[in-house]
Amino acid sequence: MYFIGLDLGGTKIATALINERGEVFQTDRRMTEAHKGPAHVFAAMKASINAVTGAVPMSVVEGIGLGIPGLVDLQKGASIFAGNLGWDHVPVLDVFKREYGRPVFMDNDVRVAALGERHFGAGQGIANLIYITVGTGVGSGIIIDGRLFRGTTDNAGEIGHMTIDPDGLTCNCGNRGCLEVYASAPAIARRTRAYIQAGHFTKMTAMVEGDLARISAAVLSQAVEAGDGLAQRIMEETAEYLGIGLASYINLINPTRVIIGGGVSLAGEKLFAPLRQVIQKRAMQNIAANVEIRPALLGDRSGMIGAAALAMEHLGCK
Amino acid sequence: MYFIGLDLGGTKIATALINERGEVFQTDRRMTEAHKGPAHVFAAMKASINAVTGAVPMSVVEGIGLGIPGLVDLQKGASIFAGNLGWDHVPVLDVFKREYGRPVFMDNDVRVAALGERHFGAGQGIANLIYITVGTGVGSGIIIDGRLFRGTTDNAGEIGHMTIDPDGLTCNCGNRGCLEVYASAPAIARRTRAYIQAGHFTKMTAMVEGDLARISAAVLSQAVEAGDGLAQRIMEETAEYLGIGLASYINLINPTRVIIGGGVSLAGEKLFAPLRQVIQKRAMQNIAANVEIRPALLGDRSGMIGAAALAMEHLGCK
Repeated sequence: MYFIGLDLGGTKIATALINERGEVFQTDRRMTEAHKGPAHVFAAMKASINAVTGAVPMSVVEGIGLGIPGLVDLQKGASIFAGNLGWDHVPVLDVFKREYGRPVFMDNDVRVAALGERHFGAGQGIANLIYITVGTGVGSGIIIDGRLFRGTTDNAGEIGHMTIDPDGLTCNCGNRGCLEVYASAPAIARRTRAYIQAGHFTKMTAMVEGDLARISAAVLSQAVEAGDGLAQRIMEETAEYLGIGLASYINLINPTRVIIGGGVSLAGEKLFAPLRQVIQKRAMQNIAANVEIRPALLGDRSGMIGAAALAMEHLGCK
Repeated sequence: MYFIGLDLGGTKIATALINERGEVFQTDRRMTEAHKGPAHVFAAMKASINAVTGAVPMSVVEGIGLGIPGLVDLQKGASIFAGNLGWDHVPVLDVFKREYGRPVFMDNDVRVAALGERHFGAGQGIANLIYITVGTGVGSGIIIDGRLFRGTTDNAGEIGHMTIDPDGLTCNCGNRGCLEVYASAPAIARRTRAYIQAGHFTKMTAMVEGDLARISAAVLSQAVEAGDGLAQRIMEETAEYLGIGLASYINLINPTRVIIGGGVSLAGEKLFAPLRQVIQKRAMQNIAANVEIRPALLGDRSGMIGAAALAMEHLGCK
């Protein structure tokens, strides 16, 4: 059985043709070019879908799944708000149903990635898990009794806006001290730049040839690898921020496993080792002793594979 | 159909004979006297159960539900740890199964109270809800798709140990800044005493005849009612602490309703009005706009009614 999964991002579109065992037959990646408007993005999405179905007629594709960033309305099949696309109440689902005459399903991109990890990644066989992505934003998906938990208005899992410092920095959601303003990739870069501008010495300055705008979570990760003291300190601070939020989260959900994906997670054990320590220190003993903190297994493929898994679930194949 | 629900507390035992519509036919309350040991407590529990079945033979009771404080092991039917009873790994379920030869079920007392509110209280007809109790401790139960969500090791819902101030007061769980050390009834009394000892004028000093040990959440509530400025300020602080935790909680769970019970909730709108404001300010707009914050409906009966509801659920009557 063939399925198509498409992961729509702010900068790129990633699409896969895949079977029910998660075997990927064909992938396509191309630019989103969101500034050209929804019609252009839809055309690019269709071109990407057509590219992966080259060898297979659309009639044998059981279903298509779409992972859409931001707030989605699953009843209406629409994007309510997606800052990185500039979308505000854009209908999505009908466009693709009309085009292909096949079953099409959509959900938020983070939740879809959680499904990908649950069925084909680091969450296989696990009934209760949390998938967290730490990248441009910080978001999560909750799997309960093997199924995605969406909440009353399909907004469950908003860990990015969990308060970790009640008098902390202002977030654009209106709250203060949200996890996202400390631990997202842009927040980490901002914190790093602030240290350097305050006069801290670090190899990172040379690594970006003095251009602090080029400081990124990836640069930080390389600098930790190279034994840079400031980079190590910032990584530990990041682990502390994430650990404060995660300890509270697992105290509430008591999951078997926490899977962490997104660009920042690529730092690997340099991030995971201190993060596990913070969680052991802050979460309830009984809960912390029974949870595994693991990196995502599918990397940047979790979105497209998860979008296909969404279609499989809806069609009763998973 | 008749069911028995028993709510075991640190100071008292409350038991009810009830039918599947939640109609209470007979209740019994007596002292726990936990210091006399588990055998004495079991004897008191049995006496309480026998007292409510006076008019009805045990053979027509479909099942018995027990709400047990602290950590429970549902597989073994045992109390793992209950600080207010002094219990450490005490088998419970078999004692009552042997005694009555009827189906007996147990769960944590807070989760059982959540079930009571869900079936017969402020949560009727609501599929996704959080029940929070703010009293000697701060705990919660999560209802997802109409069912109690217990988590991997039956510890889900530990809102009392959610971090609301990462550098805050030390909690006996080992973490810093847990909600419970700010918003539980003893914590509120402690904060109140600290203000008075620091020289703040308040009617509460006269209300307890200068004996600050008698300061309690109930005294605070009366003082707010009487227009006392300090009491008002402490109530608003309590709402702020609870609101920080609750905003994060509802961002994760996206429930339809939050039901708040326990002694502190008896303050009513004096607590609920500022609490709703904090939640509107701190939670995601989409989520906050779609959640109702309501007082529990069953008061101190939610535990015993919920324990009976636990038996109903297990026996397929709910």
